Amino acid sequence: MKLYDMELSGNCYKVRLLLALLGRKFDSVPMNLKAGEHKKPEYLAINPMGKVPALDDGGFVIRDSQAILVYLAGKYGAGKWWPDDANGQGEVMQWLSLSANEMINGCAIARAIPKFKRPGDLPAAQAIAKGALSILEGHLAKHDWLALGRPTIADIACYPYAALVWEGEVPLDPYPALRAWFKRIKALPGYVGMPGIDGK
Amino acid sequence: MKLYDMELSGNCYKVRLLLALLGRKFDSVPMNLKAGEHKKPEYLAINPMGKVPALDDGGFVIRDSQAILVYLAGKYGAGKWWPDDANGQGEVMQWLSLSANEMINGCAIARAIPKFKRPGDLPAAQAIAKGALSILEGHLAKHDWLALGRPTIADIACYPYAALVWEGEVPLDPYPALRAWFKRIKALPGYVGMPGIDGK
Repeated sequence: MKLYDMELSGNCYKVRLLLALLGRKFDSVPMNLKAGEHKKPEYLAINPMGKVPALDDGGFVIRDSQAILVYLAGKYGAGKWWPDDANGQGEVMQWLSLSANEMINGCAIARAIPKFKRPGDLPAAQAIAKGALSILEGHLAKHDWLALGRPTIADIACYPYAALVWEGEVPLDPYPALRAWFKRIKALPGYVGMPGIDGK
Repeated sequence: MKLYDMELSGNCYKVRLLLALLGRKFDSVPMNLKAGEHKKPEYLAINPMGKVPALDDGGFVIRDSQAILVYLAGKYGAGKWWPDDANGQGEVMQWLSLSANEMINGCAIARAIPKFKRPGDLPAAQAIAKGALSILEGHLAKHDWLALGRPTIADIACYPYAALVWEGEVPLDPYPALRAWFKRIKALPGYVGMPGIDGK
């Protein structure tokens, strides 16, 4: 199994984290984004969107971190991280959409502007980030996990950019339930971290 | 089954379209967004994100159009619109993520600025929209449907804001494969439209 990967990408880290929790070995193929490797024809044939991550599992090629989580959890997770039933899948999906939209356009963009010197509107991204963090905080104040009363790919999808948001100059102090959830995730057997994730 | 609904919302229309294709009856609960009904405590108890659509299916309450599509297709679609296997779900999910992110932040926002007089950066949204439309066009130039070689919720999720994007002043002329796909979708048994979708 090959993961087109970048160490500092929260989206790539999601996939590495699930693979670690599943105990699956894989080959990381580091992509040099600064050199534009993700926009070259060879990579666009793998992912026409020109983004990391993408996964090649024995010739089955799939892009997008949420899609990869659904695939890996369904294939190798025996129902543990992604349920089989419609109600359960719907419940988890609510958080995969938050992860695909607000966690990226808020938390990840707010981080990328100061950290990677990306152009963008930092206050606008921080406002979206705070909205998403409030939704997570409100839920986690009453529940240990985002869905189904147990750890699922809902948690794995939302965790990285929530835990990295301090790099986007959004302090985590107002979110105690979120910080308690980080600790529960870090205690999962097989857990691996990434640079920045334990910075606060 | 109750759908918290708004006629001109592409996200609500996605759900109405799938329900029509599935032949399921439902009660539409029209939300008056101009009057701020979606931000009142009664509705925030249903959807803390304060957005439409949300669905109440006999007490099972679910928000987010992509999550609702997964739930309804899984519950009532007998594997037709959302497959049971990991590879198939992963393949469809790639497009649900495009729908949750770029189709909203590009196509839907570009439409909302002129149509609903929403504040925002129209050229920036149009650029994201064109990127997403190019990805769809590239795929549809070689395939009749977005995933699995047949109509799925991947198509239903991406279709509305693609077909409405001309209202965001993004002409559809450069996208012949997309326009041919619109025709295939409109020919599906049970298909229903919405205002603006047949405007071009």
